[in-house]
Amino acid sequence: MVATDDTAQEEAQAREREAIFAACDHCVGGHGRVRPHAELAALAQATAANEEPDRYGTGALIEEFEREVATLLGKEAALFLPSGTMAQQIALRIWSERRGCRTVAFHPTCHLEMHEQKSYQLLHGLHGRLVGDPHALLTLKDLVDLAEPVAALLLELPQREIGGQLPAWDDLRLQVAWAHQRGAAVHMDGARLWEAGPFYGRSYAEIAAPFDSVYVSFYKGIGAIAGAALAGPADVMAEARVWQRRHGGTLVCLFPFVLSARLNLRRRLERFPAYHQRALSIARTLAAVPGIAVTPDPPQTRMMHVYLHGERALLEAAALDIARAERVALFHHLRPTDMPGWSMFELSIGDAAAALTDAQIGAYFSSLPLTR
Amino acid sequence: MVATDDTAQEEAQAREREAIFAACDHCVGGHGRVRPHAELAALAQATAANEEPDRYGTGALIEEFEREVATLLGKEAALFLPSGTMAQQIALRIWSERRGCRTVAFHPTCHLEMHEQKSYQLLHGLHGRLVGDPHALLTLKDLVDLAEPVAALLLELPQREIGGQLPAWDDLRLQVAWAHQRGAAVHMDGARLWEAGPFYGRSYAEIAAPFDSVYVSFYKGIGAIAGAALAGPADVMAEARVWQRRHGGTLVCLFPFVLSARLNLRRRLERFPAYHQRALSIARTLAAVPGIAVTPDPPQTRMMHVYLHGERALLEAAALDIARAERVALFHHLRPTDMPGWSMFELSIGDAAAALTDAQIGAYFSSLPLTR
Repeated sequence: MVATDDTAQEEAQAREREAIFAACDHCVGGHGRVRPHAELAALAQATAANEEPDRYGTGALIEEFEREVATLLGKEAALFLPSGTMAQQIALRIWSERRGCRTVAFHPTCHLEMHEQKSYQLLHGLHGRLVGDPHALLTLKDLVDLAEPVAALLLELPQREIGGQLPAWDDLRLQVAWAHQRGAAVHMDGARLWEAGPFYGRSYAEIAAPFDSVYVSFYKGIGAIAGAALAGPADVMAEARVWQRRHGGTLVCLFPFVLSARLNLRRRLERFPAYHQRALSIARTLAAVPGIAVTPDPPQTRMMHVYLHGERALLEAAALDIARAERVALFHHLRPTDMPGWSMFELSIGDAAAALTDAQIGAYFSSLPLTR
Repeated sequence: MVATDDTAQEEAQAREREAIFAACDHCVGGHGRVRPHAELAALAQATAANEEPDRYGTGALIEEFEREVATLLGKEAALFLPSGTMAQQIALRIWSERRGCRTVAFHPTCHLEMHEQKSYQLLHGLHGRLVGDPHALLTLKDLVDLAEPVAALLLELPQREIGGQLPAWDDLRLQVAWAHQRGAAVHMDGARLWEAGPFYGRSYAEIAAPFDSVYVSFYKGIGAIAGAALAGPADVMAEARVWQRRHGGTLVCLFPFVLSARLNLRRRLERFPAYHQRALSIARTLAAVPGIAVTPDPPQTRMMHVYLHGERALLEAAALDIARAERVALFHHLRPTDMPGWSMFELSIGDAAAALTDAQIGAYFSSLPLTR
């Protein structure tokens, strides 16, 4: 594969863009820059000298962390896995085998449908039954209209692709009850579950209680290097361990991920209400700028989608200029939208925003070449 | 799952055994004790402060290391993966799709057959055609007798389950040529390929040249925390990236594994001839003890199988006593064999043996309650 002059030039520009954003001192979203050297040094410092490594999923380090996560989610057992992609396919395969049914139901924007190259079908032979409108929360009516049997229903809390929206607690309970009445298991895609705590005002165990299995991520929001967990009944988790081996996810050692997950979960979980409060004030600031819209408004979690009115290439160039001159990253890229003249980016508020005031953020965004 | 008194007692004993071996100062096999704190601190120290993390398989760190591995193996491209289980299933699936044939051939002791819970079948729908005697190297005759078409032939270099045996170079060439003449791809399970260099007296690129795809491990022999690579033609590696995502192996960050693989590959690869030389002298020492046999004799790599004549429980108890009293680990467990009165363990010589003389090792083994 020989790069042409054009693609070589594009690649060089992309690398230059990346380097400019990597050199920023401040970001509106996220937890700030991660560098391997500092990350590994901090991890070493937080680890006792006599802590033993895990070995193929066994050992006190990983087993105790799994128990910690199971307790947090109010489930009998939990399993640490390298990725959520692995965790969710495994959960759905198990429910499918147990129900003797290959059909699993999820929203059209489900991670399994959008980001996993149809692995649920190509590796697991599952059939995905899409339910609900791609631009809206799933409703009970969507489920009632689903005329065929399903082994499992996957619900994502919050729904990332629509800006982190969450169903009302009573709606959620009714949807889960509908599935259980029809004999389907209910699995939670809780990639961003930690962000849902403030909205529901309930413990994570209470939010997870209606679900048969729950996947959570340790790098999204929590900011660990990588890693995920699946939680649920002990017999299901024992079965999931066999599938983890089949997936190639039972690594000889996962301790860098386990240690990073443990460290960051313990220090960041309590900050999510503050992230949500800050997301609310940043959303108010941005929505007050002519040519900017925020969804959901107000944000229900620390996440929001920010819509900008104007020419996409000009807006991206202006953000790159700010990154270069001020070393402040507003956004890297904008995504096109169905709405003519509008493009958007996903914004998740974390530790990094603390270094910027709402007024500063408002001023940066106001300086963009927006169509007002 | 409530533990009974018996299983609780067994678990406590197993933990005590593990603790005794973990506290040993010296081991005959391996590279010595790994502790997360020291491992992460050393890794941080070996990493430049401005090294950027990988992101979903992209970035200079992982891409440059992939090029380094591709060059070492003389292949067009390489792909870093979390595990060999993932790497090999992916390679065989790709060759299967390209040949329009679901059957893949491998030795009965192949890792895919023994240690992956039939994932090649349950995730990938492949049919495994076993070829050869479980206790011997694959032969050309085994292949010639194989009467059905196969998409790919997997050859393991060296064959771990028979003590790390390697076919003669000419035999290897003839087996590969047989497969290619029949239109099958040839994939190398090179989990321990690094150990095969001294035997063939050829570069790794020369050994890999006849193969269409090659998997190598970075934790076996090399001693990295975890990680593997698949190498081959650029278009096959591009396709493998899609399957890596499907497997859940495209992690947001793999830098702890990549950095550890890079560091340990660079420092340990040149030591394999010395490991082999030491394995030869340790094998001579052990084989001279009445009641001990070594296979292969002499070892062809740094690995050997050590057979002990005597009562298994007594031999294990004696090894535990030595570990407790002398803080020297000879072996943790013995495996039963088909031969009455004999049990065995796998021994791979690495950095750790340097702290012990052959005479010391011989004396420890001579002190065991062997049937002479």
